[in-house]
Amino acid sequence: MKANRVHNFSAGPAALPLSVLEEIQESFLNFNNSGMSITEVSHRSKWFDDVINDAIERTKRLLKLDDNFEVLFIQGGASMQFCMIPMNFLHGNKTADYVDTGTWSTKAIKEARIQGKTVHVASSSEDKNYSYIPKDIEFTDNAVYAHITSNNTIKGTQWSNFPDTGNVPIVCDMSSDIMSRSFDPSPFGFIFAGAQKNIGPSGVCMAIIRKDMLDLVPEELPTMLKYTTFASKKSMFNTPPCFAIYTIQLVLKWLEESIGGLEKMEILNQEKARHLYDFMDSGDFYKATTEKDSRSLMNVTFRLHDEALEKHFVEEAIENDLNGLKGHSSVGGCRASIYNATTMDSVKALTDYMKHFESKNG
Amino acid sequence: MKANRVHNFSAGPAALPLSVLEEIQESFLNFNNSGMSITEVSHRSKWFDDVINDAIERTKRLLKLDDNFEVLFIQGGASMQFCMIPMNFLHGNKTADYVDTGTWSTKAIKEARIQGKTVHVASSSEDKNYSYIPKDIEFTDNAVYAHITSNNTIKGTQWSNFPDTGNVPIVCDMSSDIMSRSFDPSPFGFIFAGAQKNIGPSGVCMAIIRKDMLDLVPEELPTMLKYTTFASKKSMFNTPPCFAIYTIQLVLKWLEESIGGLEKMEILNQEKARHLYDFMDSGDFYKATTEKDSRSLMNVTFRLHDEALEKHFVEEAIENDLNGLKGHSSVGGCRASIYNATTMDSVKALTDYMKHFESKNG
Repeated sequence: MKANRVHNFSAGPAALPLSVLEEIQESFLNFNNSGMSITEVSHRSKWFDDVINDAIERTKRLLKLDDNFEVLFIQGGASMQFCMIPMNFLHGNKTADYVDTGTWSTKAIKEARIQGKTVHVASSSEDKNYSYIPKDIEFTDNAVYAHITSNNTIKGTQWSNFPDTGNVPIVCDMSSDIMSRSFDPSPFGFIFAGAQKNIGPSGVCMAIIRKDMLDLVPEELPTMLKYTTFASKKSMFNTPPCFAIYTIQLVLKWLEESIGGLEKMEILNQEKARHLYDFMDSGDFYKATTEKDSRSLMNVTFRLHDEALEKHFVEEAIENDLNGLKGHSSVGGCRASIYNATTMDSVKALTDYMKHFESKNG
Repeated sequence: MKANRVHNFSAGPAALPLSVLEEIQESFLNFNNSGMSITEVSHRSKWFDDVINDAIERTKRLLKLDDNFEVLFIQGGASMQFCMIPMNFLHGNKTADYVDTGTWSTKAIKEARIQGKTVHVASSSEDKNYSYIPKDIEFTDNAVYAHITSNNTIKGTQWSNFPDTGNVPIVCDMSSDIMSRSFDPSPFGFIFAGAQKNIGPSGVCMAIIRKDMLDLVPEELPTMLKYTTFASKKSMFNTPPCFAIYTIQLVLKWLEESIGGLEKMEILNQEKARHLYDFMDSGDFYKATTEKDSRSLMNVTFRLHDEALEKHFVEEAIENDLNGLKGHSSVGGCRASIYNATTMDSVKALTDYMKHFESKNG
């Protein structure tokens, strides 16, 4: 670990690749020989146009998107998408299916219903406190879309395989696992991801839209709430969040050129998660909170014997340069978020600390 | 001018204070001894809480806001506010007044009408291509609000004094001149400003709301489109644009501690604008495009004899390290944006170049 840096297990904003941070730092007063900071160059300049074009092209290559897809950058986080998705796609007496795997999908359902839209909860894991991903779901044949949350940062669950929705396009919140693995994009009509976990800083949401979905967007929506505005103006109807998009561009470059693509990234993520889960499963001091076949490779949630011990575990971890291990306030416990930028070295430092803590407190 | 830096006259994103950029650069791998970048720390951490609290407090001190006002940070730029303002404040058969000074106010009117809201254009300067700020406007007594754009970046006009709207709260788009001068905030019900001109990078809009305006917000709006959500959660219902807010905090600190407040900033801005306008008025080679009493202190728009000469002027400026002098594509001509962070040295470098260019081409 570089001097003065800590191991960062925060759920988001989260660790970014050190080489990306160093490149931003190095060029911060003079971006690409412009004589200006990336925060100072016009979004209408050649400098920024190269940035956003490169971010779009890298996204298409990494996710193997053909020309049926557009890559958009929208502000407001995934939460804004919870409201924009039904506003853009769901009209009249049409229905959308939602799978409720907790927290984020619950919020997405709420935002559709606030607008008076017809939502069908096709399946829910609420019965077991959202500790698993539902199986054998019956989706509605003529639904406009089927909404799922690929990874739940708070509950620590993840879809290991995406469901078969037939001809119904999947709308997927990939905020916490986008670019962490490869997948077939063809069943997806809309993918969105707040950047601040796997691909950048907070302040921008990447959205990937299949072009036929744009036909569903009503003309009369406010300009900034229409996907057609973003698609027709390359996300620059107004000034985009330039710094956040620039950071995404560098993270995607790192994924392609340093890691070697999503297949390689997926193997690294599997190795990190296996190292941590295997260690926890080898004893009973640390108890993973989710069912084994629903475990997230991104957010490893676990409990200790009692809350006082968990507090002690989190605080002593900070003294040992391991940051961000407290579970979300809505569920308590502990959580290690091990997104793309978290290295195996950091994960090993964590299990070393966990062993040491157990030996003192077990 | 520091080595490798240029004079930046971009309209936005625009120049930021060099000392702010240097502080960001210096701390970019280790923010405030966290061992993490500001882009990596949790928005729920003490580190970020200190940042947003300080940004709010400095805003209140600089603008002399009492506790009737709340300071919010919202994504989507001023354009998102064009739709959120009528959505939040204008209901039933109520009317809002809008003064149309071009571009931004024209768009604001459009976004209210898209939603079927009743808008009364109280005055417009369209008759002279928006080259002036209207006077002696009759506002509607019982309007919910009166919307104005304090400075038009594209047309180069600025309200030197705000209008008397009686008891009707002013809603003001201050995107391009917030924090450039002092004013009495009491007639204002809502002030908003995309950050990327005077107070930070793109990706965040500062909004200042008088608390009684929150009573107008309907309960049933989508969560991310309600000002009450932002006011009740200190702009952190979901992950805010942390880096942009952090940069704003540093710019406000610079305004208070290096410049000495808005009265001092206003004097500096007047001196810079006077230097440039006086030079242009002293000859007829460069022709200011706006009426004298409506001239912007932020965006100095001017024309040369013909478009070919303007193109030559802008291109040769770049060769002389003077960037961003091309007028907006919708109006053509030339424009020097001289926001807070643009120094008198840069303005003098510009007039030196203008003299030289005139001597060669006059």
